[in-house]
Amino acid sequence: MEEAVSPASVPEAAPDDGAGLEAARKEYAELRAQGLSLDLTRGKPSPEQLDLSNDLHSLPAAGDLRAADGTDTRNYGGLLGLAELREIFAPLLQVPANRLLALGNASLTLMHDAVVQALLSAPPGGGRRWADEERVRFVCPSPGYDRHFGICERYGIEMISVPLTGQGPDMDAVEELVASDPTVKGMWCVPKYANPTGEVYSDETVRRLAAMPTAAPDFRLFWDNAYAVHHLTGEPAELLPVLDACEEAGNPDRALVFGSTSKITAAGSGVAFVGASAANVAWLKERLLKQTIGPDKVNQLRHVRFFGGTDGVLAHMERHRAVLAPRFAAVQEVLEEELGGLGIAEWTRPAGGYFVSLSVPDGCASEVVRLAKEAGIALTPAGAAFPYGKDPRDREIRLAPSYPSVDEVREAMRAVAVCVRLAAAEQRAAAAAG
Amino acid sequence: MEEAVSPASVPEAAPDDGAGLEAARKEYAELRAQGLSLDLTRGKPSPEQLDLSNDLHSLPAAGDLRAADGTDTRNYGGLLGLAELREIFAPLLQVPANRLLALGNASLTLMHDAVVQALLSAPPGGGRRWADEERVRFVCPSPGYDRHFGICERYGIEMISVPLTGQGPDMDAVEELVASDPTVKGMWCVPKYANPTGEVYSDETVRRLAAMPTAAPDFRLFWDNAYAVHHLTGEPAELLPVLDACEEAGNPDRALVFGSTSKITAAGSGVAFVGASAANVAWLKERLLKQTIGPDKVNQLRHVRFFGGTDGVLAHMERHRAVLAPRFAAVQEVLEEELGGLGIAEWTRPAGGYFVSLSVPDGCASEVVRLAKEAGIALTPAGAAFPYGKDPRDREIRLAPSYPSVDEVREAMRAVAVCVRLAAAEQRAAAAAG
Repeated sequence: MEEAVSPASVPEAAPDDGAGLEAARKEYAELRAQGLSLDLTRGKPSPEQLDLSNDLHSLPAAGDLRAADGTDTRNYGGLLGLAELREIFAPLLQVPANRLLALGNASLTLMHDAVVQALLSAPPGGGRRWADEERVRFVCPSPGYDRHFGICERYGIEMISVPLTGQGPDMDAVEELVASDPTVKGMWCVPKYANPTGEVYSDETVRRLAAMPTAAPDFRLFWDNAYAVHHLTGEPAELLPVLDACEEAGNPDRALVFGSTSKITAAGSGVAFVGASAANVAWLKERLLKQTIGPDKVNQLRHVRFFGGTDGVLAHMERHRAVLAPRFAAVQEVLEEELGGLGIAEWTRPAGGYFVSLSVPDGCASEVVRLAKEAGIALTPAGAAFPYGKDPRDREIRLAPSYPSVDEVREAMRAVAVCVRLAAAEQRAAAAAG
Repeated sequence: MEEAVSPASVPEAAPDDGAGLEAARKEYAELRAQGLSLDLTRGKPSPEQLDLSNDLHSLPAAGDLRAADGTDTRNYGGLLGLAELREIFAPLLQVPANRLLALGNASLTLMHDAVVQALLSAPPGGGRRWADEERVRFVCPSPGYDRHFGICERYGIEMISVPLTGQGPDMDAVEELVASDPTVKGMWCVPKYANPTGEVYSDETVRRLAAMPTAAPDFRLFWDNAYAVHHLTGEPAELLPVLDACEEAGNPDRALVFGSTSKITAAGSGVAFVGASAANVAWLKERLLKQTIGPDKVNQLRHVRFFGGTDGVLAHMERHRAVLAPRFAAVQEVLEEELGGLGIAEWTRPAGGYFVSLSVPDGCASEVVRLAKEAGIALTPAGAAFPYGKDPRDREIRLAPSYPSVDEVREAMRAVAVCVRLAAAEQRAAAAAG
């Protein structure tokens, strides 16, 4: 597969002559008649992937319940997580082990809780808690991860969309925003195999994010490295370590790095991590000391025993790739066959992660999703990957091919292509009639 | 063992004649010479207790990863926890299963997060989020659980101490406080085998808490039923179900009920629960939907398989009792032998839970803890069980005998008694001299 690219503008199609619309309607009617029932809504691991970690759940063996330092993992304590698990994931998340905390079962929780903590107690460098600010705003590269945006919406944090470029966010736009507006306190980033565009932030993007002047002294990058090791090709993308870049730029406290094993071992029964500067770790600890006596250390030991070491994680991810890559290849093949050269769709070619982003003519995405739904294909709602659930151009559709089988992916993609062709033809016809 | 009693006032001792002080100093010098190293600081399960659940950790068996409704526990979803685990604990926590959520690994986290949620979004019945109130105050029956008070302190919630009576808090004082002051938004309660006094709230106490008029429309009881099934005798105490009492009194949204298996299976690797009215559950869900995609369902299934049912939990608690009861009996025996009838100490006789509360003459608790420390006996810091870490009379000492062996408990209690006798003798001598 090629490097991830951001969807280019879809060229304006030629006006319809009527015959195309008829044909598109006919093939959609045939599609509906098939009575399909397929779901491409969420980036869930497939049962085949989950099976790869089945041995995990019955670890550790009886009598093997002590951590390397002698800690009884069955009892209270160990606020920051097992040292040996932090060692295993430190190089993968590009955070020194002593500043990488191994905590609960979901990085989403750690991100939510970090935002909530900033609302209730000022982060290092900040003057007051964000709850006392008249206005708090976050930069949101879009399309992005809907659950990031959901946290903002829940707590009244205003979201400012910034477009993606295929190398990460449009840095000119980001730099201007954060430099001029002290209410801009944070920014969501999925820097590697981004959800949903698949792009990897370039070294220049990371350096500019680390170095850019910000009007808010307590501005934070929420660096969700969810797909750090989730490669789809034999040539893993390299990401510049953001904490190092921030430190070199003189902004050591700028980034909070998040990750988890949700899509490595089991979704919901894995381990989540947060890494940061010493000052940020101390700030996080202030909350953790009141919120918990410690994470599930038995589950952490379970993961240590399962992986053995960092290499074990990488070998495990190769097994995931063997399951996932054919599904992503099927998406590319069918979309190319069905929509290639028609001038009505573009799509990303991710080298990792869980999604393909499909761009249809402006104003057509909702209609494609509606048509697909009526034909039995569940797609992520149009706009879901944008702040407030609104895609200003109504053109991006997130495809999540991980869960269905390869055959189902093919079938679903063919169905989606039918819907795209019909929606585009209807639009052309309406334009010709108007 | 008898019913739990609250420490009575310690009678004033007769003035010292000098000989008593000499003897006390001598025996303390002998104690120090022994070079003991014992820890009675925290209510941790002993290794013997943790061993009772060793089979838990390697469950569920391979191929047994589906919940009763077919849910694949290895994947995302199931925000409120596995139905069958909620069914098992519903009768024990006195909450209907459909309003009892099975979530993360610690009830402390659920309590912390509920307080934080109220700070950031008004609970049902409330006009605005607590963070926008000029002042928020909580009623804190004292001595109580230090980590409850830690949450208040962290978020600037003022604590108002209320004494305990042996049947729960002094309800006349509580009723007056909550009726007159709209800034009183909450109250911490450990209603059964309270930490540290061991008392069980009487039916009348529960009814009055449920029915009392409150000036704050969004007043909440944080009902930490941490020791719901942690009996030390063959006659378990009965607690009036608080949610029912609140509903009967016309205040259905008043209580949030918390519990966990931390002291049932493993501390940190268990499952925590929160139960409440439908309106409160809907309010909690508003946060959970943004904070998590779901709890660790494999661990929940592990617990289902381990217990089998509610009876399995009760049978398991009998095994805990067999380990714990001799330790608590040792505390009673040694304190009675060493301090009985001296008029310098009283202590509780809990019928459940994890603590004994020792009352020494006013002004002596810190000195006893200091003397014990220097003799190698770590005790919970004096005052720790009070808001802001300050016991106004400096007289309560929390004893946690669960972790050491029975012999160590005996040894530690004898040592504590030496320290109490010396501190009391020093005080008498000083009074005589003054």
